Amino acid sequence: MTDIPFRTARELRAALGARELSAREVVQAHLDQIERVNPDVNAVVTLVAERALAEAAAADERAARGAELPPLHGIPVAHKDTHETAGIRTTFGSPLHADHVPERDELVVERMRAAGVISIGKTNVPEFAAGSHTFNPVFGATRNPYDLSRSAGGSSGGAAAALATGMHPLADGSDLGGSLRNPASFCNVVGFRPSIGRVPSWPAPLGWSGLATAGPMARTVADAALLLSVLAGPDPRSPIALDEPGETFARPLDRDVRGLRIAWSPDLGGSVPVEPEVADVVEASAKVFGDLGCVVERDCPDFAGADEAFRILRAWQFAVKYGPLLDTERDRIKDTIVWNTEEGLRLSATDVGRAEVLRTELFHRFREFFTRYDFLLLPVSQVPPFDAELEYPVRVAGQDMVTYLDWMRSAYFVTVSGSPALSVPAGFTPGGLPVGLQIVGPHRADFAVLQLGHAFEQATGAAQRRPAVAR
Amino acid sequence: MTDIPFRTARELRAALGARELSAREVVQAHLDQIERVNPDVNAVVTLVAERALAEAAAADERAARGAELPPLHGIPVAHKDTHETAGIRTTFGSPLHADHVPERDELVVERMRAAGVISIGKTNVPEFAAGSHTFNPVFGATRNPYDLSRSAGGSSGGAAAALATGMHPLADGSDLGGSLRNPASFCNVVGFRPSIGRVPSWPAPLGWSGLATAGPMARTVADAALLLSVLAGPDPRSPIALDEPGETFARPLDRDVRGLRIAWSPDLGGSVPVEPEVADVVEASAKVFGDLGCVVERDCPDFAGADEAFRILRAWQFAVKYGPLLDTERDRIKDTIVWNTEEGLRLSATDVGRAEVLRTELFHRFREFFTRYDFLLLPVSQVPPFDAELEYPVRVAGQDMVTYLDWMRSAYFVTVSGSPALSVPAGFTPGGLPVGLQIVGPHRADFAVLQLGHAFEQATGAAQRRPAVAR
Repeated sequence: MTDIPFRTARELRAALGARELSAREVVQAHLDQIERVNPDVNAVVTLVAERALAEAAAADERAARGAELPPLHGIPVAHKDTHETAGIRTTFGSPLHADHVPERDELVVERMRAAGVISIGKTNVPEFAAGSHTFNPVFGATRNPYDLSRSAGGSSGGAAAALATGMHPLADGSDLGGSLRNPASFCNVVGFRPSIGRVPSWPAPLGWSGLATAGPMARTVADAALLLSVLAGPDPRSPIALDEPGETFARPLDRDVRGLRIAWSPDLGGSVPVEPEVADVVEASAKVFGDLGCVVERDCPDFAGADEAFRILRAWQFAVKYGPLLDTERDRIKDTIVWNTEEGLRLSATDVGRAEVLRTELFHRFREFFTRYDFLLLPVSQVPPFDAELEYPVRVAGQDMVTYLDWMRSAYFVTVSGSPALSVPAGFTPGGLPVGLQIVGPHRADFAVLQLGHAFEQATGAAQRRPAVAR
Repeated sequence: MTDIPFRTARELRAALGARELSAREVVQAHLDQIERVNPDVNAVVTLVAERALAEAAAADERAARGAELPPLHGIPVAHKDTHETAGIRTTFGSPLHADHVPERDELVVERMRAAGVISIGKTNVPEFAAGSHTFNPVFGATRNPYDLSRSAGGSSGGAAAALATGMHPLADGSDLGGSLRNPASFCNVVGFRPSIGRVPSWPAPLGWSGLATAGPMARTVADAALLLSVLAGPDPRSPIALDEPGETFARPLDRDVRGLRIAWSPDLGGSVPVEPEVADVVEASAKVFGDLGCVVERDCPDFAGADEAFRILRAWQFAVKYGPLLDTERDRIKDTIVWNTEEGLRLSATDVGRAEVLRTELFHRFREFFTRYDFLLLPVSQVPPFDAELEYPVRVAGQDMVTYLDWMRSAYFVTVSGSPALSVPAGFTPGGLPVGLQIVGPHRADFAVLQLGHAFEQATGAAQRRPAVAR
């Protein structure tokens, strides 16, 4: 058996560039790993092996001709099944789109492929990416590689489980209320929610919306940064794209972290319930930064209004997107989406206005907080990976969760602030379940957040414990 | 009598830098001009002459000490009365705020003052800047300098009339649906609506809102660009600020325009009525570009949905801002604002969503249009300056205008597209009323739009006809 599936993208790219490995070998090794492990975890739900091997062969030919090779030359990726891929079935996890084959790539896929990625298939998602647990009527549930009875998180759950098991080294996630952070936390991989506009979105019916964003996932922070260097940068198709070129994120991440002022809170300043075994990992992570010479203090911005703002804006967007479907397809849409959409249909314009005002107020509280601290450490999820048979955890630290969104607050409160946030492996519960640390930085300080995550990863190596299923 | 009031800001700054003029002389000359002309036009509604002369004296001392002088050292400006100024009454044109003296400058004022501007007072606005004709119960109406019976436009009407009559060389305007373009057109001066985020806004209760923006006004395009170089650039207080530094706009504007592809339409592709004497000026302006060697074609993007999108988004923002006031202050708010706010209070969240979708669609139609053309020429206003006794023009080219917004479509349709737009003096009606040309460019191509405006200005010199009242 080869070690190829657990090499980082950077290592693979170096070996491919030096012609020590061919793209065909790299792709085949990952296809073999998928064949071996995927039946257990159900992460990759559509596979295009022949097409991928043909693309790999073409990439090898280009390399043999001495062509200049792009930054992700020969790297295999299965794309999130909510990201449209030309010629590859894209279901959004919905029976409404079970046979949908798009005619063009959406922007993030287009950028990855232009950078040399070999598309090998699609990763599983919850229906329309709603809810942070990956199950749907088209493909069933994705299983947590560290405990197959548990959830892999979501909505980028297939991506996280695939990364954790060596099915591919990089993945395109996306995140509205934690959709790449929660699964990264649950599966012991890295997920980065960048600042809005960092990774432009197209097509996007609400072009100016600043809540959901695509972002990179990988097994290491350095690999996530490498992928971000390809995903980021302006595009005329997005009116809110940031102008900074993507190459910025290809710089080395090493930084002297001594003296940095770091706040941490195990429970968002007491605003959400958090399971003790998660809180313990956050506290231990804060100690790691203390040991690295940072000035560490328990402190947290005031999250007042974050819950109302997120609930309104999410429901509003659901009403815009799915409202027209309720008349004709209600029976083929899961109850939580119907509920969330109907919530949105009941909202007034001034509700949306109030949410925007609350969101602006939170942005300014974060801004002021970050004049006193360089970074903020929080739990990614309030719970460790939960029973995969549940739709969502119904109790957290003794408190009942009334809706499918309640347990996601530690992630979506940060969404509302506008800050970039990294989910990085931070340890395990006594029962062996992964727990991620959420590193939050000032608005648009994406590179600095990645640097801090890299320093943490170097100090702890938490990600190096592979799941038994993939050994 | 001195020629100081009609020198450009660039000329004044050069003379101040060379110590050929003192800031005190420059400020005094403009105060004298205000004393002479303002009784006729009512442009400057609050004056702080003593404070301004003291600031000018301090600036002269700094110059005498050999200190490095900022880019607008010694340039007098009266600020728009919707822009908060520390220690200077700021009424928003509303009796509710008739005695309001802010404790701090808002961002655009702060930047101008940090760049050396001497604040001399405030310029008149419509009540809460609503409607494109400057009258309010606190200060009355601003008169058009070219015909005192006519409107100066609005909401930056005081600013435009002050510039036209030499009361100050630069002004801070703002623009939601034409608020700096219409008055520039009516008063034969320059107004530039930049791309959203170019000039960051703070304080702004809807921090992510991308419809209203501050922008520079002046008598020449080069002066507007100079002011933009001070107003533009990122600020941590605005989540949507563009990262490009303001200095970009201080570069020389000269450009070879030969071969540029320029579309023009006298009536937005037939989607709005336009008075023939305005349409004639647009057509003549297109010919100017033809004579300059541009490839000029009559063509226009499809503005479908722009009207509905703008009406909804404007009413929504009015409901958020003024809705709470209706309960207690309804009698002290003008009818058009009450109407517009109540329109917003009736909207649903999905109405706002539909507006955002329409706006995104228009953005993409503009984007595609600008792959075929470099610029688009339109009328700024559908009418020449109208009777100042009217609240708004009730007929345009034979069509009835039902609401106070109907006649502003040529400006606000462009707002919805997200494109930067320059209002530049283009000529006069047979009766001697000014008519502006609207130069629209691709999203974020602010500098290119200014360059084209500069080329047009060099070719025509339309702005050089001073109003009789200021001669």
